[in-house]
Amino acid sequence: MTQTYISDIAKHLGESITIKGWLYNKRSSGKLAFLEVRDGTGLIQGVASKKDVSGQTWEDCEKVTQESSIIVTGVPREHPKKPGVYELDVTSLEVVQLAHDYPITPKEHGVEFLMDHRHLWLRSRRQHAILRVRHTIIKAVRDFFDNNGFTLCDTPIFTPAACEGTTTLFEVDYFDDEKAYLTQSGQLYNEATAAAFGKVYCFGPTFRAEKSKTRRHLTEFWMVEPEVAYAKLDDVMTLAENFISYIVGRVLETRKDELAILERDVSKLESIVPPFPRLQYDDAVKMLHQAHAEGILENKFEYGGDLGAPDETYISSQYDKPVMVHRYPAAVKAFYMETDPANPDLALCVDVLAPEGYGEIIGGGERASSLDLLLQRIQAHNLPPEAFDWYLDLRKYGSVPHAGFGMGIERAVTWICGIEHVRETIPFARMLYRLKP
Amino acid sequence: MTQTYISDIAKHLGESITIKGWLYNKRSSGKLAFLEVRDGTGLIQGVASKKDVSGQTWEDCEKVTQESSIIVTGVPREHPKKPGVYELDVTSLEVVQLAHDYPITPKEHGVEFLMDHRHLWLRSRRQHAILRVRHTIIKAVRDFFDNNGFTLCDTPIFTPAACEGTTTLFEVDYFDDEKAYLTQSGQLYNEATAAAFGKVYCFGPTFRAEKSKTRRHLTEFWMVEPEVAYAKLDDVMTLAENFISYIVGRVLETRKDELAILERDVSKLESIVPPFPRLQYDDAVKMLHQAHAEGILENKFEYGGDLGAPDETYISSQYDKPVMVHRYPAAVKAFYMETDPANPDLALCVDVLAPEGYGEIIGGGERASSLDLLLQRIQAHNLPPEAFDWYLDLRKYGSVPHAGFGMGIERAVTWICGIEHVRETIPFARMLYRLKP
Repeated sequence: MTQTYISDIAKHLGESITIKGWLYNKRSSGKLAFLEVRDGTGLIQGVASKKDVSGQTWEDCEKVTQESSIIVTGVPREHPKKPGVYELDVTSLEVVQLAHDYPITPKEHGVEFLMDHRHLWLRSRRQHAILRVRHTIIKAVRDFFDNNGFTLCDTPIFTPAACEGTTTLFEVDYFDDEKAYLTQSGQLYNEATAAAFGKVYCFGPTFRAEKSKTRRHLTEFWMVEPEVAYAKLDDVMTLAENFISYIVGRVLETRKDELAILERDVSKLESIVPPFPRLQYDDAVKMLHQAHAEGILENKFEYGGDLGAPDETYISSQYDKPVMVHRYPAAVKAFYMETDPANPDLALCVDVLAPEGYGEIIGGGERASSLDLLLQRIQAHNLPPEAFDWYLDLRKYGSVPHAGFGMGIERAVTWICGIEHVRETIPFARMLYRLKP
Repeated sequence: MTQTYISDIAKHLGESITIKGWLYNKRSSGKLAFLEVRDGTGLIQGVASKKDVSGQTWEDCEKVTQESSIIVTGVPREHPKKPGVYELDVTSLEVVQLAHDYPITPKEHGVEFLMDHRHLWLRSRRQHAILRVRHTIIKAVRDFFDNNGFTLCDTPIFTPAACEGTTTLFEVDYFDDEKAYLTQSGQLYNEATAAAFGKVYCFGPTFRAEKSKTRRHLTEFWMVEPEVAYAKLDDVMTLAENFISYIVGRVLETRKDELAILERDVSKLESIVPPFPRLQYDDAVKMLHQAHAEGILENKFEYGGDLGAPDETYISSQYDKPVMVHRYPAAVKAFYMETDPANPDLALCVDVLAPEGYGEIIGGGERASSLDLLLQRIQAHNLPPEAFDWYLDLRKYGSVPHAGFGMGIERAVTWICGIEHVRETIPFARMLYRLKP
């Protein structure tokens, strides 16, 4: 029995084919059984008629339960009233394994219950749609960089020191009482590989030991980080808008069905094309002060700080595209940021805020290329210079202006899918109190 | 000054262009300076003539040192005697930053020194070639699965329990005194996602806390693992031979220059096409015994054990393609292996041994689909059943035959590049005594 996948069904109309899958749902009239079958590539309704199938097959149709594994043979045809929808006239059914009391029933379940049963919850239509979009986004991310002359340079997970502070690091017992820390960003390493390959990216899991329990936090998440030698802040802003537009375009092109299942308003995604608005931090602050004066924002934003969630939401709601907020005060940004020659109190950095209140999806900017500035900054941030000896080498041997950014995949998937919580955008989410399954 | 990349040089012959890069090497006659310039995409020789350039440019040509960052303007032309090779007639040179005493000189350095300076060593021609081949292999891996209906389902790095034993696990302090372990394989999770999506793969870093200091061990390495619902051992052997052949084909197609730099005998790679020889473990043992009898192998192989390095080398040297050794004794294999219905003492598993003595690059097989068998095995291996509750669910709710494999990327890159040691196949290797840079 050659297996035919449901996604290929249209090529086999009128032929006898065999589907190997699971029972998604069932109803029966006593004479006709309607079996909704899934095989991972799609869903199809099988129709078995008591008078046309063997006694054994009919018995199996009656007894088969939700999520039992089944092998169904039959002939596919187009639905009489719904063009593009197919049904299978079942000729025989084999139950591979009968499932008893599948825990996830069509009734509503609480989120904790579903997360405890994540290994099964993944089988549902909505989770399928989200994870297919995730797959497409990841593929688009890689294609974008691969097609634009970037070299993939994987950066290490085990690092000897912290990239941005030490309080949110996961510590690992390495060998002989040595400690390693799980990476929070591949950026410092990217700077080394960019000096070797010109244009590079890394793309892997990153870790933050934050005791935050919000809808935007995972302890383990995937991040893509491009870095470009001889690039300036403006170059990476252009790169970021082209990059995001490309990804959104690919999802719109190939995942229409999934977006429909998620009831995503695709018109909101269709407007994501370059250029994106560029807003200097100072102007963003004016915008927030104005909103406060008009009573739209409760608290008056304090100049000099990082943007909070309500601030980001307000700013992004002013645009139908992602907005690129640049040149934050250097004091609130990481030690490695290049400063603005026009005003050394400002960092040449950019945060990209997704529309519809989804907040920051990209952070990046230009890196300090002067050895002296960097040494000064390491000291000012109370970081141990000896941990950065190799990083400082990059400023001794052929230092160049360079810039890059990082995008968290799960936040991007959350926004593009238009869903509430990052926990559904990765097969097995890891959070403050969630390490299983 | 628009930047032109060296890889695009052939499109700009006769035009005045600007290259932004680094000085790779230099020689000078007093009247002519020959500057070998790299920009991450390639190398080009720039020729500056004292009489044709400004005094400042000539001075810079004289003082510029290895790995100084430079911006070179000039006109590219084809080399008079070497078709396909280009040179740049330099019109001006700007030194961005002058490097003093670059540590890696053309003389020979020891490996430890080079690994200590990995952030700079990456700039050398040979390391470039290896990491470009790595990039191509990773892209080919993903394209193969994406183009064959597989869904990428990333599996977690933080896991609550061990997949294969606990002695080689890295332990992490999670929150509130909880411990997490770094994944050794995504397989158990793949089995859950395969039941949801039919054909899946995961591809990410994996970790082994092995105190091994060999040329084949890293503590952190990347692994790709496909898993297919309703597949049997024969199906994954076919998948593996098509997969490996595809990857090798892509490297041959797109990385000829890099293979030449590595002095790889490409004829050895050109013979990697399906089908691959399939050798049952029992027959492999006969082959080893014969070799022992003939005095080729020193020690007589003991039936029942796993193959050692000299055994693998001997077996693989009998073939010019990877050889697939299947049906090892179940006793030496992991608890989740399906057993052979024809002989329950044998596991339905396969190891793929690369030619030329490179040893195992793939391990895989069919997974136990019976709940009872699995419970028995968990007990026999002294594993805590409660750690596997969700995994056992997969056998309660729609269990199906399923199979898959895992391939370590660094070992595959080592073999395809024809090099000695895995440490050069990843940008920043992590080993027993190597956590920096």
